[in-house]
Amino acid sequence: MLDASCAPIAFAGSPMDRADNIRVDPEALGNLMNWRARVMELDGLLPSVDETGGLIWGTLADVDPDTELVFLGMMDDKAHFAPVPPQGSTSPAMPRAWQVMQLLRPEELAVYGGAKSLVDWHARHKFCANCGAPTKITKGGWQRDCGNCGAQHFPRTDPVTIMLVEHEDKLLLGRQPRFPPKIYSALAGFVEPGETIEEAVAREVWEEVGVRVSGVRYLASQPWPFPSQMMIGCTSIAETTELTIDKTELDDARWFDREELEDARNAGPGGNETLIFPQRFAIAHRLVTWWLDKGADA
Amino acid sequence: MLDASCAPIAFAGSPMDRADNIRVDPEALGNLMNWRARVMELDGLLPSVDETGGLIWGTLADVDPDTELVFLGMMDDKAHFAPVPPQGSTSPAMPRAWQVMQLLRPEELAVYGGAKSLVDWHARHKFCANCGAPTKITKGGWQRDCGNCGAQHFPRTDPVTIMLVEHEDKLLLGRQPRFPPKIYSALAGFVEPGETIEEAVAREVWEEVGVRVSGVRYLASQPWPFPSQMMIGCTSIAETTELTIDKTELDDARWFDREELEDARNAGPGGNETLIFPQRFAIAHRLVTWWLDKGADA
Repeated sequence: MLDASCAPIAFAGSPMDRADNIRVDPEALGNLMNWRARVMELDGLLPSVDETGGLIWGTLADVDPDTELVFLGMMDDKAHFAPVPPQGSTSPAMPRAWQVMQLLRPEELAVYGGAKSLVDWHARHKFCANCGAPTKITKGGWQRDCGNCGAQHFPRTDPVTIMLVEHEDKLLLGRQPRFPPKIYSALAGFVEPGETIEEAVAREVWEEVGVRVSGVRYLASQPWPFPSQMMIGCTSIAETTELTIDKTELDDARWFDREELEDARNAGPGGNETLIFPQRFAIAHRLVTWWLDKGADA
Repeated sequence: MLDASCAPIAFAGSPMDRADNIRVDPEALGNLMNWRARVMELDGLLPSVDETGGLIWGTLADVDPDTELVFLGMMDDKAHFAPVPPQGSTSPAMPRAWQVMQLLRPEELAVYGGAKSLVDWHARHKFCANCGAPTKITKGGWQRDCGNCGAQHFPRTDPVTIMLVEHEDKLLLGRQPRFPPKIYSALAGFVEPGETIEEAVAREVWEEVGVRVSGVRYLASQPWPFPSQMMIGCTSIAETTELTIDKTELDDARWFDREELEDARNAGPGGNETLIFPQRFAIAHRLVTWWLDKGADA
């Protein structure tokens, strides 16, 4: 496991009490929708940030009465909601989103991330996948019901494995075609129906670089709100080192030694001449840091 | 981690090569849809089982040409498919499903479980959640596309935490109202958007029994095809022992000592006079077995 004394994992550590008992109690929920309730101010799907790195909240009076609201939970004795943006709102362009999110304090980023996944899902799921009829938000935004066929729909959380591949004193990292230049990171892929975490890790590494791994171990997890992943960070041991790179998935992948990665880490966010260390929001940053810090003997 | 020498985890260990490169290659996929291709024989969503505990497969000639097919992968040099059952097919009643599944060999159960999750999802997701229009199966059944708004939809895998709660030499187990009499098992709940695995474990235990836990550790995972969960098995340490049971979630929960659990385990599937040990298909069986076998000092 990763040392809990490390820097917090981005998007984790929300102080919100999810108060799930209120979701299923329309009367209790109604009573909380008063002048004290706070509603997250969103610009599309981006947060609004005050000068202290906090989220800006409005009141119920600030939102259109037809706006769907998701009950996020209780904090400071007040109910907190997030408004579902208009249908068709798409995820914000990432460079801009990162600029804004970097302004948020860690616990505020966690509150925003959870809310963003939820309202983004609602904005893209207003119809019943079973029959095509419009659905209605219910249970404080933790469910949508179809009035036509009776199907119930729930916000998604998609498990994704992200894995180190170790071999002696080297680490395998890859770069996706969409990555900015010089960035290499941990391989990753969605867990598919019918497999364990360990099987998903082994399959992804085999598919992407043609290497068989064993000894898969879980290290840490992270919620990732683009749109709603749960990143499951693992490490694994390569049985061979020759790479057969799947060029539809990866631009490149290669083995790095400790010195190369240390040097890139020390160079900071912009990297050195050849390599940018995974950025600090990503769980890959934590995983590679774990590998460097455990040393060669661990 | 759990000892890999234990009995296999039910629904894990599929020998199917998922051959994901073929999914995205319509020509390669088309070439595999020949007389050698095998199509899983399903009775609704239940498997058909031969006298050796194997799945029964037919050919493409056995299915209606309009049937949607999911490409499961390659095995014995043959492409394997599963047919999407008619819309509105629901999960089979569990006692009957268990009777049939118990006939399957472990690796056949794994192939069936993955296929069942996929075709079940397709049967309930023939319309676009974004606009309500009908969608078309694509990428060998690993995606559905909307011809109206262009949205892409992917089969779900829902992460669920399932956790032991330890306190000194006792273990906390609970029973859901739907459980048959005398069965107690590990607490469990869906991971929600915006939380880590460790946070989900702590929240679920707090919600269900009012106990704060720390020291959450991952032990093992399991694909669970009812309809498509990924069970994430953990253990945790209780900080207090007094229980406040959420009666909407649980019928009962209580602390068990080693002797009580050993006795129920030794009594076999029917249990002793007061307790039935978690059944062997469930990851809870593995988790509680791990706790018993590690002994009091580990």
